[in-house]
Amino acid sequence: MQLDLAGDLHDLFRDIVDIRSESLHEDQLADTVEESLRGCDHLTVTRIGNSIVAATNLGRDSRVLVAGHLDTVPVADNLPSHVETRDDGDYLVGRGTCDMKGGVAVALHLAATLAAPSRDVTWVFYEAEEIAAEHNGLLKVRSHEESLLDCDLAILMEPTDAIIEGGCQGTMRFTLTTEGQAAHSARSWAGHNAIHDLLPILQILQDWQADGDHLVEVDGLTYHEGLNATMVQGGLAGNVVPPTATVQINYRFAPDKTAQQAEQMMRTMFADWTMEILDLSSPARPGLDKPLARSFARSVGTTPMPKYGWTDVARFFEMGRPALNFGPGDAIYAHKADECCKLSSLDDCARALESWLRERSEGDH
Amino acid sequence: MQLDLAGDLHDLFRDIVDIRSESLHEDQLADTVEESLRGCDHLTVTRIGNSIVAATNLGRDSRVLVAGHLDTVPVADNLPSHVETRDDGDYLVGRGTCDMKGGVAVALHLAATLAAPSRDVTWVFYEAEEIAAEHNGLLKVRSHEESLLDCDLAILMEPTDAIIEGGCQGTMRFTLTTEGQAAHSARSWAGHNAIHDLLPILQILQDWQADGDHLVEVDGLTYHEGLNATMVQGGLAGNVVPPTATVQINYRFAPDKTAQQAEQMMRTMFADWTMEILDLSSPARPGLDKPLARSFARSVGTTPMPKYGWTDVARFFEMGRPALNFGPGDAIYAHKADECCKLSSLDDCARALESWLRERSEGDH
Repeated sequence: MQLDLAGDLHDLFRDIVDIRSESLHEDQLADTVEESLRGCDHLTVTRIGNSIVAATNLGRDSRVLVAGHLDTVPVADNLPSHVETRDDGDYLVGRGTCDMKGGVAVALHLAATLAAPSRDVTWVFYEAEEIAAEHNGLLKVRSHEESLLDCDLAILMEPTDAIIEGGCQGTMRFTLTTEGQAAHSARSWAGHNAIHDLLPILQILQDWQADGDHLVEVDGLTYHEGLNATMVQGGLAGNVVPPTATVQINYRFAPDKTAQQAEQMMRTMFADWTMEILDLSSPARPGLDKPLARSFARSVGTTPMPKYGWTDVARFFEMGRPALNFGPGDAIYAHKADECCKLSSLDDCARALESWLRERSEGDH
Repeated sequence: MQLDLAGDLHDLFRDIVDIRSESLHEDQLADTVEESLRGCDHLTVTRIGNSIVAATNLGRDSRVLVAGHLDTVPVADNLPSHVETRDDGDYLVGRGTCDMKGGVAVALHLAATLAAPSRDVTWVFYEAEEIAAEHNGLLKVRSHEESLLDCDLAILMEPTDAIIEGGCQGTMRFTLTTEGQAAHSARSWAGHNAIHDLLPILQILQDWQADGDHLVEVDGLTYHEGLNATMVQGGLAGNVVPPTATVQINYRFAPDKTAQQAEQMMRTMFADWTMEILDLSSPARPGLDKPLARSFARSVGTTPMPKYGWTDVARFFEMGRPALNFGPGDAIYAHKADECCKLSSLDDCARALESWLRERSEGDH
């Protein structure tokens, strides 16, 4: 199957959405994308696993990388997609519409139609963003041939409702475990209650919430940190003094600190308990002070906002590449059963990106 | 199969233990017990479901009821039983040895051998004590023909290591649920954290622990209350602000208060949360001030202790019958995979009970 990349953007969007591509099952969509891009003479196409890199090589002063992941979270009886007319416009509804095949559609459309952009462009369509990092297509491309990701600015087409969201916050998930001593609850003084021992942990969390609003300004954007218990579990039975209890905590931290600094803060704050780190992902500074990013922001026109969630822009930040998030769809619908994307949001993104990629470059890299 | 009730007590014990009788599967043991008791001419035998009542009718001044349940918790690869010689004596090891076929063996042996006790005796062997009350054999006998349980003193042969344990504490299990608002943890300020809201509940529990030792004297015995969180659970995923959290609490209360009073105390203490009561069982006052109980205590010789756990003595208390716990085996082994009972503990119980049931009654009811 070959997609009509240069045709109607909304039709292309729907075609892509209706090709199921849950993580680790992107083969069919990757085949289709590869085949379609190979039909564009102005692009050099490379495939690594189920990730496809298509680049112009026009010798421009600067290179922009535009990336979108092909995979989705599991389908929840929400495919094939359908169009719904709502008060504020038409939406495509179904798995992947928000996260993030709208961005993929825009990128594919522009990859095919912008034969001579004012900046060289590397279009990246990659696999397995929604699951563990070991499968991540961007990392596979990087380890296979990092130069394929060379760029002066990376634009990740995560859903931002067509505004620029700069950088991303880091995230650290860890568990704290309290240790008690089991006993029959009828003779509870013979044991030690591990659930009761969660009290000082919850007290620390409450004190943190009460200690200001945790807004952190970085490079002109205001991030918003969060420190939350997200899961708690403890106890063996209703008549047993619990010998252990575990609380899982998620710290979302602004890009003014490194992952290592964030970890050290948590280790200091919760020094009294056994800590197991489940994951720790570096944040990315927004980098909107860079000329190319400034130029793109001017072209988009709306005020850039901080990205609160964690995205693969952090991987570009690690590689020393400025990166930002910009794509159609409201992230609030990501992963939900009623996932959807307003169709006009695709048009807004396509228009902004196209006009910027057509405008005369001012040596802005 | 017929048991040799009048033969060696230890052999009888082992025979009974090796007839599996998990709750709701007591048929085979009940058949065997019934058949064996029907061989005793001095007993009137009644069977209701898998419970057997065998009574003398000698016109004595007082009637003692001796009860033991036939069922066990599930076998955990710990049958058939075996004898182990330990430093302090021989033990029978296996499911049901402690809870409570040692008591059943003693009762069966004395039922057969005491043809003319000084007090009339009603021997009760009943089903389904280890599971929900709706199945309880004692309650079934009661609802079928309550007069079968008439007595001046009930002795429940629960494991007490051959001392008298008076009354029992009541127990109330309930859950408290906190309600929050889910949100992605990267935008946690959009939600409300239900796990954090457990803090004041844990604070109340801690304050209660700190507020004295919760010893309560009732009729000369000192009970020991407990108020414990036994289970806690909350959260949807590691990156979601938890919308609900639930803590299960178990209040073990002394028999100076009724179940209704205990419930009211908990409702007052935790008035700010949604409470769901999982079970609420009345305590039993020890009743050791009654003449027949005093006489039995004198005969046993050791100092009576309070029963901390909940037992079916509470059901006799509800019926207005004094009741106490007295049986072989250390309750600490009940329900454990290495469940066991010291054989000499059976002999101690049998000797004490037999000598009391043979001694001249002094009109002590």
